[in-house]
Amino acid sequence: MDKLHEPLSCQAACGLPLALEVMGERWSFMILRAAFNGVRHFEDFLDELGIARNILSNRLVRLVEGGILKRDHCADDRRRVEYCLTLKGQDLLPAMLALRQWGEKYAMGVPANPVLCDARDGIPIAPITVRAHDDRIVRPGELVWRDRLQCTGHDLDALVKSDA
Amino acid sequence: MDKLHEPLSCQAACGLPLALEVMGERWSFMILRAAFNGVRHFEDFLDELGIARNILSNRLVRLVEGGILKRDHCADDRRRVEYCLTLKGQDLLPAMLALRQWGEKYAMGVPANPVLCDARDGIPIAPITVRAHDDRIVRPGELVWRDRLQCTGHDLDALVKSDA
Repeated sequence: MDKLHEPLSCQAACGLPLALEVMGERWSFMILRAAFNGVRHFEDFLDELGIARNILSNRLVRLVEGGILKRDHCADDRRRVEYCLTLKGQDLLPAMLALRQWGEKYAMGVPANPVLCDARDGIPIAPITVRAHDDRIVRPGELVWRDRLQCTGHDLDALVKSDA
Repeated sequence: MDKLHEPLSCQAACGLPLALEVMGERWSFMILRAAFNGVRHFEDFLDELGIARNILSNRLVRLVEGGILKRDHCADDRRRVEYCLTLKGQDLLPAMLALRQWGEKYAMGVPANPVLCDARDGIPIAPITVRAHDDRIVRPGELVWRDRLQCTGHDLDALVKSDA
């Protein structure tokens, strides 16, 4: 693990605080998870999560303000409001599934039911792994921190552009 | 997103609550992150995180009880205590990096400095993605929930065994 040392001064500016703000709050996380499951309407979130009305209302406002959910009028009934994941919200899927898989592995020893599968062939998705630029799986001991200036622009762009 | 619907009754038993308990609390997360960065001693956590002594003490106990960190006497100085990541703790790396990458992408538009690289070639790691069993990248709209009984044992084992 010693190779994995990051200078102290950088620990505040690494992007985790924002992610934590969204994912670190239990109800926000559960709302997000329901949104990934196709839940869109206030009353449906209420039913599925067993959450208090005022808390749900508060968290939905925060998720919309944070650009994770988009509040819209339904196409088929303009009086109804629906909450959909934005692209930014959809991009939370790898983090959410990595957390879920970890919980399954250590909380239960078997995957939860139902199982998330590839729609194309119905086979369960693979464990989420850390990959090198050429797709090799990288383990914690095989990682090292480098200054951005030592990395080429092309390499860095890959980390912030939309998925290939 | 409609394909991604999970029956309500299963939402409580999916393994997320355990993961949330560990990752969802801001200080626990920051302690874990420091541990991934090679921090091992109480006083070093204290210095690096700017955390109150009693909170650090409390969170370390909880992380040890949760099997995420192991409390040990240093090999070179038996009077000193060190906290190291267990295998269960190390397995949180994909989730932690997925969260970090998301925060980088949306909070700053550029990766934080320093950049986490593959030690072998010094090139930044790839964005964390969701993969099918045959390693194809799968997107949110290409996922479907299936009952465990419809999946073969082999497929399910892949999700809970140690990384290949």
